[in-house]
Amino acid sequence: MLTAAICGDVFASPPVDSILAGIRAVTGPMGCLLIVKNYTGDRLNFGLAAEQAKSEGYKVETVIVGDDCALPPPRGIAGRRGLAGTVLVHKVAGAAAAAGLSLLDVATEAKHAADMIGTMGVALSVCTLPGQVTSDRLGPGKMELGLGIHGEPGAAVADLQPVDVIVSHVLKQILSPETNYVPITRGNRVVLMVNGLGATPMMELMIATGKAVPKLQLEHGLAVDRMYTGSFMTSLDMAGFSITIMKSDQAVLQRLDAATKAPCWPIGADGNHPPAKIPVPIPPPALATKNGETFGGPLQLNQQGLILEAAIEAAAKAVINLKDALNEWDSKVGDGDCGSTMFRGATAVLEDIKCYPLNDAAETVNEIGSSIRRVMGGTSGIIYTIFCKAAYTKLKSSSLDDITPKKWAEALEASIAAISKYGGATAGYRTLLDALIPASEVLRKRLDAGENPTTAFIQSSEAASAGAEATKNMQALAGRSSYVFGELLAAVPDPGAMGAAAWYKAAAMAVRDKSLHT
Amino acid sequence: MLTAAICGDVFASPPVDSILAGIRAVTGPMGCLLIVKNYTGDRLNFGLAAEQAKSEGYKVETVIVGDDCALPPPRGIAGRRGLAGTVLVHKVAGAAAAAGLSLLDVATEAKHAADMIGTMGVALSVCTLPGQVTSDRLGPGKMELGLGIHGEPGAAVADLQPVDVIVSHVLKQILSPETNYVPITRGNRVVLMVNGLGATPMMELMIATGKAVPKLQLEHGLAVDRMYTGSFMTSLDMAGFSITIMKSDQAVLQRLDAATKAPCWPIGADGNHPPAKIPVPIPPPALATKNGETFGGPLQLNQQGLILEAAIEAAAKAVINLKDALNEWDSKVGDGDCGSTMFRGATAVLEDIKCYPLNDAAETVNEIGSSIRRVMGGTSGIIYTIFCKAAYTKLKSSSLDDITPKKWAEALEASIAAISKYGGATAGYRTLLDALIPASEVLRKRLDAGENPTTAFIQSSEAASAGAEATKNMQALAGRSSYVFGELLAAVPDPGAMGAAAWYKAAAMAVRDKSLHT
Repeated sequence: MLTAAICGDVFASPPVDSILAGIRAVTGPMGCLLIVKNYTGDRLNFGLAAEQAKSEGYKVETVIVGDDCALPPPRGIAGRRGLAGTVLVHKVAGAAAAAGLSLLDVATEAKHAADMIGTMGVALSVCTLPGQVTSDRLGPGKMELGLGIHGEPGAAVADLQPVDVIVSHVLKQILSPETNYVPITRGNRVVLMVNGLGATPMMELMIATGKAVPKLQLEHGLAVDRMYTGSFMTSLDMAGFSITIMKSDQAVLQRLDAATKAPCWPIGADGNHPPAKIPVPIPPPALATKNGETFGGPLQLNQQGLILEAAIEAAAKAVINLKDALNEWDSKVGDGDCGSTMFRGATAVLEDIKCYPLNDAAETVNEIGSSIRRVMGGTSGIIYTIFCKAAYTKLKSSSLDDITPKKWAEALEASIAAISKYGGATAGYRTLLDALIPASEVLRKRLDAGENPTTAFIQSSEAASAGAEATKNMQALAGRSSYVFGELLAAVPDPGAMGAAAWYKAAAMAVRDKSLHT
Repeated sequence: MLTAAICGDVFASPPVDSILAGIRAVTGPMGCLLIVKNYTGDRLNFGLAAEQAKSEGYKVETVIVGDDCALPPPRGIAGRRGLAGTVLVHKVAGAAAAAGLSLLDVATEAKHAADMIGTMGVALSVCTLPGQVTSDRLGPGKMELGLGIHGEPGAAVADLQPVDVIVSHVLKQILSPETNYVPITRGNRVVLMVNGLGATPMMELMIATGKAVPKLQLEHGLAVDRMYTGSFMTSLDMAGFSITIMKSDQAVLQRLDAATKAPCWPIGADGNHPPAKIPVPIPPPALATKNGETFGGPLQLNQQGLILEAAIEAAAKAVINLKDALNEWDSKVGDGDCGSTMFRGATAVLEDIKCYPLNDAAETVNEIGSSIRRVMGGTSGIIYTIFCKAAYTKLKSSSLDDITPKKWAEALEASIAAISKYGGATAGYRTLLDALIPASEVLRKRLDAGENPTTAFIQSSEAASAGAEATKNMQALAGRSSYVFGELLAAVPDPGAMGAAAWYKAAAMAVRDKSLHT
């Protein structure tokens, strides 16, 4: 890119002495190439500085860039302003110089590059000059076509159009065979630059690029070798963009692709290979379970299946019975719909249970998650879906016959870990984890101690209930309740924790009852 | 950087199925790392997608980024939002993955990076939600401190402050030892990112970076290893910026510096080596001329010096005499000050001539240029300064005694070429070149034909006059006259050309007279 840039006052050409200082500061024995945008003041000030520098013994060459395609061919010399395409000339010249070419060869490449470039801009707002009130030149719903980069008015004012129409118009204007501003014809290769004018979000520039590439390819018959999207040459905080088309060939691409330390030079994306639509692998069909059963429920439940069925039904019914109490608690500390939301999930589970592959505990837990996800909605819906999904993954890692009580304890731990990880809460945050974590800890401890699994389940369910009750004394640290003052929460348990304790306890008791009676 | 980004609706978390589709599309045998900004919706949707993907057999890890430092330490889990610092986590993770690390190691590096990052934003405007009227939440002259990237209100509203004050405040907040959000202390090395929120010009972001670097170095005692300035994570078209500070070490720098094809990832500039002020070589002193004379005029003029003196005086007087006519013509085709402007230059030359080193033609021409540049101003002032500078460079390339008539002819050609090049005009553009080009052509032709130099000068001056008169029939193609309709220009000669012809002819006649009388 450049070794030095000479700044003038805002929108004014820099004085000769500044330019001279720049030349003196950076010019080595190989000489100095001045790249000047075609404005009268710049031509003359840089010209005078160049002559002065030459008279001091410096080797200086100058390339003038005029890439504006907005106006019809000018009668004279003032027509084609230098716009964002100049940045491409900087890159070509900088890379040529870095490659060790002579000053004259660098200037020749830069001049050739400048001849291959056409640009046109569109603005939706007038820029703000520092210290001045922003002009209201451009009314609402209007845009200016063919503007400059110094806040000067555009060639035409038009009603705002969809970006598709604007991009089409700009491309036609740049590539017009009538004006013949750039020697680009059907079948050529080009480089595309979409340049923001200072206040245009990247996302909108990307939309313009996304429209321009297929138009160049399909409507103008051009191959797009590179595309550059960003705000490379702005007009202060103007909202709008310019499009630059440069004829490309291998030599130009080599310069554009050359490494540079200029922080704002973007990595050129290849415009001819936009990421194709990637075929997304279809998830493994869930219709057949490991043991070959199809959904619709197994014909004959084994003992594990019968116990699981009883536990699920009991758990769902417990939640349904607790609906009003949960809503009541929630109306004091949240938005009052905890009971209704959990009621929807429990009802769906009761409806769907006849289709669950109950002899396969892992798949059944997964199906419970699907039922919940389908109807529950809201944060609690996602949390219970995550709960089931994590348990399913853990349970599925064993073969069917290996789902021991310890495996169930591990599944509960995995579920708690997943909820904690994705929801961000842990023990003491006044959430359902305050029921589940004590339950999990007791379950694991009793099983490790060799306790009868059913008894361990019952004991752990008592820890769940105690944990849920204890939320009465907790500050809310997650969820909606965290916006409520502590005093209001006192004496009200967390409804999420109470709901979790209820279904957990119901399941434990059902497992005990079913185990006793079979 | 990233292999895939999952988009939701504007400012909404993407749905689980979109995330799942992304995971399925890009996940290979090494697995998939999800980098999620800390918003409840994102945590849960990505969490559920991750659990689902795991249950389908994909290896998935998740890193949550919460780099916001605007709010005091939260009571719970919702406080630290994910902001622009997440982009640095993307880069570290992407580079680690590209280096071939295992999923777990990539996740560990990303998590570690996230822990080292603090960010705070400042907004001067509210963003526009597509299809909605922009909120007037933020009044004029106000700014919001500690905003999010989804248009949410900031932590505080304050009166607009100079950027210096804002940057100081933001840095103090991020690096606050009270909140201890980032483990950065005096003597550490850091990376700086100044991120535009969508509608902030690069120039203004650069100003913020320029303020931040010395403050980090001097006020906070930190070394700045890299600085990244640009719009990396926007809030649609919000005007404002965020500052991100990341603790850096060699391992982090290696990841940040690793090559990427992501078009918007900038080349990191080294913040500890801002370009020093380059000592600009002082131009060769103009006080002593080649033959050792000092300015103030030579004590004794040689014959060349006497002729040059006569020519300059005559030329200047001719311009002075033509002042009113030039103004009259210019008032019809330009802004009416051509005569006055040239009068100023000619008067200055007459005043300064006693100081010109007249025995040294090259230096004298240079001094004429200096006189003109000092007083004339405007485009014609620069053009005549370029004219003198180019002639000086050509004349100076010969030794004093070698300044032959042919050398003068070459100097005139060099001057015309310089004006044409920097001003953009050529023959027929209705400018002073329409006097000088015919003069130059005739001069060269007559000298080449062996004509007496003085006669050749006279003949060429007649060509200058004829050329200037011929501008009456020309369309203006340069300068202000190019905006005037052709009919108005008819019968009025170009004042610039008439002025040039006048001084040229006067000089020729003075040379003839002086040569005859000495």
